[in-house]
Amino acid sequence: MLDVVIRGATLVTAEGMQRADLGIQGGRVAAVAASLPEARRVIEADGLWLMPGGVDSHCHIEEPSPDGTVMEESFESASRSALAGGTTSVVCFVPQWKGGGVLERFADQRRRAERAMVDVAFHQIITDPTPEVLEREIPELVRQGVRSLKVFLTYDPLVLDDAGYLQVLAAARRNGCLVTVHCENFHAINHRIAALKAAGIVAPHAHALARPAIVEREATHRAIALAEMMDQPIQVFHVSCAEAAEEIARAQARGVRVWGETCPQYLALTASDMAREGFEGAKFMCSPAPRDEAEHGRVWAMIRRGVLDVVSSDHCGFSFDGPHGKRANGADAPFDQVPNGIPGIAARLPLLFSEGVAAGRIAPEEFVRLVSANPAKVMGLWPRKGSLHIGADADCVLWDPKAERVLSNAAMQHAIDYTPYEGRAVTGWPVMVLRRGEVVMEGDVVTAQPGSGEYLPRGPYALAQGRGVLEPWLS
Amino acid sequence: MLDVVIRGATLVTAEGMQRADLGIQGGRVAAVAASLPEARRVIEADGLWLMPGGVDSHCHIEEPSPDGTVMEESFESASRSALAGGTTSVVCFVPQWKGGGVLERFADQRRRAERAMVDVAFHQIITDPTPEVLEREIPELVRQGVRSLKVFLTYDPLVLDDAGYLQVLAAARRNGCLVTVHCENFHAINHRIAALKAAGIVAPHAHALARPAIVEREATHRAIALAEMMDQPIQVFHVSCAEAAEEIARAQARGVRVWGETCPQYLALTASDMAREGFEGAKFMCSPAPRDEAEHGRVWAMIRRGVLDVVSSDHCGFSFDGPHGKRANGADAPFDQVPNGIPGIAARLPLLFSEGVAAGRIAPEEFVRLVSANPAKVMGLWPRKGSLHIGADADCVLWDPKAERVLSNAAMQHAIDYTPYEGRAVTGWPVMVLRRGEVVMEGDVVTAQPGSGEYLPRGPYALAQGRGVLEPWLS
Amino acid sequence: MLDVVIRGATLVTAEGMQRADLGIQGGRVAAVAASLPEARRVIEADGLWLMPGGVDSHCHIEEPSPDGTVMEESFESASRSALAGGTTSVVCFVPQWKGGGVLERFADQRRRAERAMVDVAFHQIITDPTPEVLEREIPELVRQGVRSLKVFLTYDPLVLDDAGYLQVLAAARRNGCLVTVHCENFHAINHRIAALKAAGIVAPHAHALARPAIVEREATHRAIALAEMMDQPIQVFHVSCAEAAEEIARAQARGVRVWGETCPQYLALTASDMAREGFEGAKFMCSPAPRDEAEHGRVWAMIRRGVLDVVSSDHCGFSFDGPHGKRANGADAPFDQVPNGIPGIAARLPLLFSEGVAAGRIAPEEFVRLVSANPAKVMGLWPRKGSLHIGADADCVLWDPKAERVLSNAAMQHAIDYTPYEGRAVTGWPVMVLRRGEVVMEGDVVTAQPGSGEYLPRGPYALAQGRGVLEPWLS
Amino acid sequence: MLDVVIRGATLVTAEGMQRADLGIQGGRVAAVAASLPEARRVIEADGLWLMPGGVDSHCHIEEPSPDGTVMEESFESASRSALAGGTTSVVCFVPQWKGGGVLERFADQRRRAERAMVDVAFHQIITDPTPEVLEREIPELVRQGVRSLKVFLTYDPLVLDDAGYLQVLAAARRNGCLVTVHCENFHAINHRIAALKAAGIVAPHAHALARPAIVEREATHRAIALAEMMDQPIQVFHVSCAEAAEEIARAQARGVRVWGETCPQYLALTASDMAREGFEGAKFMCSPAPRDEAEHGRVWAMIRRGVLDVVSSDHCGFSFDGPHGKRANGADAPFDQVPNGIPGIAARLPLLFSEGVAAGRIAPEEFVRLVSANPAKVMGLWPRKGSLHIGADADCVLWDPKAERVLSNAAMQHAIDYTPYEGRAVTGWPVMVLRRGEVVMEGDVVTAQPGSGEYLPRGPYALAQGRGVLEPWLS
Repeated sequence: MLDVVIRGATLVTAEGMQRADLGIQGGRVAAVAASLPEARRVIEADGLWLMPGGVDSHCHIEEPSPDGTVMEESFESASRSALAGGTTSVVCFVPQWKGGGVLERFADQRRRAERAMVDVAFHQIITDPTPEVLEREIPELVRQGVRSLKVFLTYDPLVLDDAGYLQVLAAARRNGCLVTVHCENFHAINHRIAALKAAGIVAPHAHALARPAIVEREATHRAIALAEMMDQPIQVFHVSCAEAAEEIARAQARGVRVWGETCPQYLALTASDMAREGFEGAKFMCSPAPRDEAEHGRVWAMIRRGVLDVVSSDHCGFSFDGPHGKRANGADAPFDQVPNGIPGIAARLPLLFSEGVAAGRIAPEEFVRLVSANPAKVMGLWPRKGSLHIGADADCVLWDPKAERVLSNAAMQHAIDYTPYEGRAVTGWPVMVLRRGEVVMEGDVVTAQPGSGEYLPRGPYALAQGRGVLEPWLS
Repeated sequence: MLDVVIRGATLVTAEGMQRADLGIQGGRVAAVAASLPEARRVIEADGLWLMPGGVDSHCHIEEPSPDGTVMEESFESASRSALAGGTTSVVCFVPQWKGGGVLERFADQRRRAERAMVDVAFHQIITDPTPEVLEREIPELVRQGVRSLKVFLTYDPLVLDDAGYLQVLAAARRNGCLVTVHCENFHAINHRIAALKAAGIVAPHAHALARPAIVEREATHRAIALAEMMDQPIQVFHVSCAEAAEEIARAQARGVRVWGETCPQYLALTASDMAREGFEGAKFMCSPAPRDEAEHGRVWAMIRRGVLDVVSSDHCGFSFDGPHGKRANGADAPFDQVPNGIPGIAARLPLLFSEGVAAGRIAPEEFVRLVSANPAKVMGLWPRKGSLHIGADADCVLWDPKAERVLSNAAMQHAIDYTPYEGRAVTGWPVMVLRRGEVVMEGDVVTAQPGSGEYLPRGPYALAQGRGVLEPWLS
Repeated sequence: MLDVVIRGATLVTAEGMQRADLGIQGGRVAAVAASLPEARRVIEADGLWLMPGGVDSHCHIEEPSPDGTVMEESFESASRSALAGGTTSVVCFVPQWKGGGVLERFADQRRRAERAMVDVAFHQIITDPTPEVLEREIPELVRQGVRSLKVFLTYDPLVLDDAGYLQVLAAARRNGCLVTVHCENFHAINHRIAALKAAGIVAPHAHALARPAIVEREATHRAIALAEMMDQPIQVFHVSCAEAAEEIARAQARGVRVWGETCPQYLALTASDMAREGFEGAKFMCSPAPRDEAEHGRVWAMIRRGVLDVVSSDHCGFSFDGPHGKRANGADAPFDQVPNGIPGIAARLPLLFSEGVAAGRIAPEEFVRLVSANPAKVMGLWPRKGSLHIGADADCVLWDPKAERVLSNAAMQHAIDYTPYEGRAVTGWPVMVLRRGEVVMEGDVVTAQPGSGEYLPRGPYALAQGRGVLEPWLS
Repeated sequence: MLDVVIRGATLVTAEGMQRADLGIQGGRVAAVAASLPEARRVIEADGLWLMPGGVDSHCHIEEPSPDGTVMEESFESASRSALAGGTTSVVCFVPQWKGGGVLERFADQRRRAERAMVDVAFHQIITDPTPEVLEREIPELVRQGVRSLKVFLTYDPLVLDDAGYLQVLAAARRNGCLVTVHCENFHAINHRIAALKAAGIVAPHAHALARPAIVEREATHRAIALAEMMDQPIQVFHVSCAEAAEEIARAQARGVRVWGETCPQYLALTASDMAREGFEGAKFMCSPAPRDEAEHGRVWAMIRRGVLDVVSSDHCGFSFDGPHGKRANGADAPFDQVPNGIPGIAARLPLLFSEGVAAGRIAPEEFVRLVSANPAKVMGLWPRKGSLHIGADADCVLWDPKAERVLSNAAMQHAIDYTPYEGRAVTGWPVMVLRRGEVVMEGDVVTAQPGSGEYLPRGPYALAQGRGVLEPWLS
């Protein structure tokens, strides 16, 4: 007898929609059938859609700083928020601090993640590619299941110059890892920040002035060109504009293995949000900066073209108030001293569904591809995650495509004291979530136990491997 | 109890691969599960791949001419060949003769198709868009389940000028049909044929000289531009070269609903095949003409980019010998009096699998998309055809991905006396085919009964509908 | 002793500006020097610019119709208008009527042009490419100095289909002629006209609805592709929008010999002018139709890129009133029965200078290239026309770059009863014009004698010849 | 009475060709006329072409190093070589050493240039953009006539990172200077050099392996993007391949003020030259590295498109032997310890004429534009240099377009002990050179006096100024 049967839903996967019952055994999808017999638990789901749980491949959770402080959003709170919004797996980050290694940091984050209620994989950030890190620690990380290295081409002190980036590309290639890249030109931004501050333009909206699309386009082209030279696949994180996406499109057209991710903030927020009265604008500061409304349409076009094929949250929450919040340096802190990032892990699916499927911009299966199947594929987690294949983890979202809700901070269930989407009406909402066969959210109530999330070690996978021929002396 | 259970295969669909049993009930897929109980018939399929049956959306079968002759390849023989090669559904053509209507021709073809052993849908060719046809007959055809209108921009007497093409686009839009287009510039080809003949260059290889890539590129751009103006989706048939495909790519990038089809002949044959000794070259004459080997690589690249997303056979067989064959006008007939077209319905899957999957150019799921899922989608037959969704027709191919075979005319099992692929080694071969749950081919023996194929009426579907706004006075 | 010396002007040619005296002898430029000695006539020109006379390579003048009527604008009146506006040479058209030849028509137009006061060359329009015309008459025309064949891809009964166009391309190649092309899709326009009329939308502004940019883009791509196939240079006439110009740019980038012309109406008029009250809109009807203001900027960008390198007038005047005028079919005539074309020979230089040089969009030498040097080059008249080279015809415009004028119909000095530019303020105006050394306009008074214009026979020239290799059997 | 009259030549300028006499007075062009009267000196030039003297805008001459050594090629020897090859003006470089300023270096180079026999302008290299240099010294340099700042994006210790480059762009914009840029990715080259050396691949041909086209393309895109952001015109130096040139073309198409230069080595040498036996390959080492023969055709296409509009020599001579020569570190020195650069100041015009005009690739006026008029324009020296305008410096080359010569080191007349073009046959050769009206070369004998060259101070000019609007706070 099956453990769970979900009856009467419309299954929506990356491939399309079908009316079928879904059976779960031992936490895994065991059967998809026109009709399934009784089970230990039967969930009636007429009128609902059943989709693979969301995979958020870009989340900043409980990251520590060298000074000992840790991000407000803990694995527990982030998990609650994720589940509230239909996401069952996350890929988050392990920091590296200049002068330090990565294995110890990784061990720390694994330990922190023990409180998670969603399944967790990690990107390893590389900020200091020492020989020790490159030659000894990364191979060990890979043995422990990490398969992506994250590089920042901007942000002091995270930034890598091209020399460091090339070393990471080479190490990734040797070890079968993907490289994920934050693409903005470091020096151009600094040049603009200095000019803005010299001119006394320091309110939050200056953040957008400091990082125009051209700095993103430049770094995107560069990141791709160097990866192309090294025959190493990369994913360009959080593409905010068509100008940068077009560089990805050109590279894809010449056969380069590069993927582009975008985020709901680039489809729903604008630079003018940062100009809201008082210090409110700080609530919308993230990087790259949101552009204007016309750009939303162009980013959607890039999604429809398949140039951008993953929508993650880039969840990176800082409360408005509090010791490490947006206003920690005062309500008139210059924009470059305001913590950068916005929370969004819970809002991701509702926003994308509402603006995408409900608004007629994309089909339901495209929605599943963007929020679940593609992130799982690009991260090497597929089909265990992001599919309803037989044998896949039974991570399921029962989704009401007609539900109308208004986003509020309470609904986000995160540790942050605001949401940039406060008051926004959406169509479509998760009514139940199962994680490996267990009901962990129902009626907006998260019932999972802290610690019930699992670590997702990742093995070698094809998308992380170049397919060109690299000169032997360069390999 | 299920009618049929296929055990132990790896299911390959457009979405990916999974190890599962597949259960069939009433001719339809009823269950996909880790393990299925006993059934009336159990097929053990360890080590094999189980894919949805091939959908060949471009086949010329038993088409009549105004003079009363009918193509050699009958629905019965074509079905046998299709099943031998793993294809279970075809979309073939209803002719229209200048001065005549389409309903009578459609009725004729339906009658002929009653002998089919695969399921059959139809494109209606429009060569004479009279008001009667446009306003009365096409709506009736649509009621009877035809949802695609085929237009030739070249070939006397099939050719439509732009006026006729526009009328077809308008009628398609009004009636919810797709338009499929043969894109080559009629007058440019005629100009070149006349010049070649004036210079005494008349052997089969002149066929390629008469229709260079530029005549295909021109017509492709034109077909797209006019369809774009009318907000009417089209599929460009048998794209032979990157130059034409690039026009499709440009249009797709600006959001135009245009799809591109290619065929194995553009991945496996070359213009130099038409220069083989004696009249042998005639065996390779089809339009557009095969290009050169370098072009094969460029067409593959367009497939990998997704610009070309369907691979059909354009099966159009004429025997080398016989009263209507390639040599019917003599072994020194000038190239423009040689019947145009090659057989390929059986070779399609093995060739594409071998050159694609076995050669490492595409993934298995991409193969399924190209030969089965995408043609079904573009033709409005999905998910009934092209998927293994619950409730879909249980059209299944059990495929041995390791089998090594040499193509021969006997293996093609068609009515034509040659295959252009004679002697070509391939990897991958269908070992069993089910059509709506019935085993119809096993071990190269087709066991289906003539007449067991069904007509596939098609209803309205989204891909055949424009998504722009058309001026009301033009609609 | 020199016949004429012009002292103190700034010479502006395609290459740049220089302060120099210019000496004329026997109607030709004889010297350019820092200082020239006394001459029979000395013209003091301090503060003025001295440029080669305008070359208007696209003018409809005194063209007859098969019914015996002749365009209102005679060679005499058109010459007066041309000289008033700084233009000293024109290339105008010889018609061909279906069923008739071209030599007789050419002889007629030569006879009519005997009254001209500017120098005159001819394009031969081909509307009926019979063997007689192609093989006997065109070679004879070439002997008589015609080196360009004009083709219409739209307009009944002028239109050529692709077969006819290809024959003209081939004849042009054999005879060393340029082909100039009106690029709009005939059938698409007819389709739209029929739809508009069926919907009762017949006022002048419907003219723009009938011919959107896409019909121009389509025909431009096609005209280029077929010319490319025939290795025959073409000039695309009156490009109205970036979308069509981009096709020219693409072709130029791949090395095709194609040039693009635009006209002041595409930089100064808009489709909304055709929506002016009453029947006023008819005054702005020309083909292609003017677009919108944003397009003006895009056309300027294409000029600055060099994609469009000639600005002609496409002067084609019909009075508002009168037996053959815009209102000849009544003040409520449907748009497709209103004569098509606008006058502009006199306004060309002032408009382009004002919007171009005075507005800072182009440099003075670019202005000379666009209105004089480039048209002369493309038409094979350079350096006799369009330059101030030693030995060139002493066609000179003394131009006051600071003069401010308001355009009016009186100032146009043409035979037409209106100008579409009425009331428009311009900066820059011709104060004196010399034609072959003779002062023919001074202070807005044209003093040339009817008949003083000369016929300009044209010989072979490189720009009219392909530079690729054409298959010998196609040549 | 004129000082000099050159009779009977065909004048070739950027605009075209004309038969005329040219008169010189006080070192300047005073008259161009059909026929000029007697003069103090009459030079008969029947059958010859008279062109403005070559302007070589990219020459390394007598540059000192911090260690006190100075390049072998002195202003005197370089001038001799320049004049022997038809070049009368050069723009060469003033170094800056890390930690030091530029004014003293500039004074040094001015002093060294006092021995020149050609006219000399300077680019100032910026390697250390300190506030002192940016704010005090550059304005002073501009007052002294320097109007271009050269930046290296590669080469230790010359390289600037993007921060430095941005500061130079900003300083250039404030001071009205052009920025010229060596575009190759520093870190990518270093990464490859390290890999090659680790693999023991150290012979001269490794130089090409170390710097593939992609590192040039990357830096070209970046250099343009940052300049675009700063609204500052740049010239991309020595473009070696279509891939990099295409980035320039894209930027030009969107209206960015960027110009592209190439050099004869990218039209005549290949990477395989560096693989010649023994250490011979070192004679062909320059950066970017020559590509392959197919690339020559693509670079020519970019020249014909106008994307690359200047051909300079990048003359940078190191003898094969001698204390600072190619073999100074031994005949088996690793490639990265071989001085980088090749001599070419004398070969520039003959090579480009032979491969360009004589081979039918470009017209004579295009030749003049590439080697004389355009470099003068881009450097702000036009029309004083690069034209035969009245009042221009009478720098003239009498050129025999039919002369056949074989290049040899002796013919180069430079201080370097080899030429990479040894033994190459060319068509076209300078037979006499005048510099400011004085005959300084005749029959291969340079007769100019050391010190007769003049310094060319440059003033503000439009091409060096952005035309966009820069945010006020960034300006």
